[in-house]
Amino acid sequence: MKIAVLVSGRGSNLQALIKNLHGFDVEIVGVVSDNEDAPALKHARTADIPTASFAEASYDGREARDLAIADWLDENQAELVVLAGYMALLSDSFVARFRDRIINVHPSLLPAFPGTRAVEMAVAAGVKVFGVTVHLVDEGIDTGPILLQRAVELDGYSDPTEIHQILQKIEHELLPEGVRLMADGAVSRDPANPQRLIIER
Amino acid sequence: MKIAVLVSGRGSNLQALIKNLHGFDVEIVGVVSDNEDAPALKHARTADIPTASFAEASYDGREARDLAIADWLDENQAELVVLAGYMALLSDSFVARFRDRIINVHPSLLPAFPGTRAVEMAVAAGVKVFGVTVHLVDEGIDTGPILLQRAVELDGYSDPTEIHQILQKIEHELLPEGVRLMADGAVSRDPANPQRLIIER
Repeated sequence: MKIAVLVSGRGSNLQALIKNLHGFDVEIVGVVSDNEDAPALKHARTADIPTASFAEASYDGREARDLAIADWLDENQAELVVLAGYMALLSDSFVARFRDRIINVHPSLLPAFPGTRAVEMAVAAGVKVFGVTVHLVDEGIDTGPILLQRAVELDGYSDPTEIHQILQKIEHELLPEGVRLMADGAVSRDPANPQRLIIER
Repeated sequence: MKIAVLVSGRGSNLQALIKNLHGFDVEIVGVVSDNEDAPALKHARTADIPTASFAEASYDGREARDLAIADWLDENQAELVVLAGYMALLSDSFVARFRDRIINVHPSLLPAFPGTRAVEMAVAAGVKVFGVTVHLVDEGIDTGPILLQRAVELDGYSDPTEIHQILQKIEHELLPEGVRLMADGAVSRDPANPQRLIIER
């Protein structure tokens, strides 16, 4: 399966995808950023993966920028779009064009703590169990059907930075696993409840 | 520590408390039900624990009933009130009278899925990780500070009854553990965030 990865920052999840999947289970045909200075783009170029950046300021709004990204992804024949620390919100028309072909990784056990600052919100709520979710992307904020989740008991932790570091290690395993399941055609919607995904391993 | 247990139904959590704690770490000085037919009351009597039932219909409303329960608990010198499948909502004045001395067990990873039908809601949301929470009771519905949480990955499960059975086994470990921590004086509020509990083991 040909996949593209959307990034905004460091790209540690991109590196995990390159290391665990690229050239084996999937081919990463492109890495896209909303930020031309994203360090992740350098990692992609080092791995000889085509890159492109699309700053919103260069377009007539987000909708136009997302259209340009979508065209670039189609030109590069991406079948699956993987958000790996992509911080911009995707427009509805982008989501519709890649319906059920966009996946994201999120540092909470969704539906708890959607949006940015998920870990900070979990700390504020005083939870003892944190976690990571890989999910399909729909028009809402982190509301798409859940593909994989992993929990970690962190009683006694209250520093979001420290918790983030622990969760990122889980992200680096869970996101490649989610991509692999999508590439294997192992994911379908429960006919009785389209919000629930059935995984056939 | 002297504890009382409030029950409405079968009382499998009460049995776990009797088996794991009664006569060792704590003394169960009374079992109270809002329902005189609760099978849990029989288990208590078999273990020679005083029981009482307080049907709301016998009182001038829930507030009056809860006052009678509170008086009975004080007469029996209960220092901690443990909700073990107690289905009635406690009035605010009851909660205030036993401030930070009421604990509850709930079949979800709070703050996700509060209230009744937590497991059904989690299944509808398509989660892959379920869990159990032991928490202090405040005036809200399952909104009190979290004492203990345990998660369980149940990918592929969609039958609430089956999931409930798995979670109940966890409840039977986690609730006694929570009671023991309270009895040991191991629980305090984080001064920086009163919603977060600090556990000193």
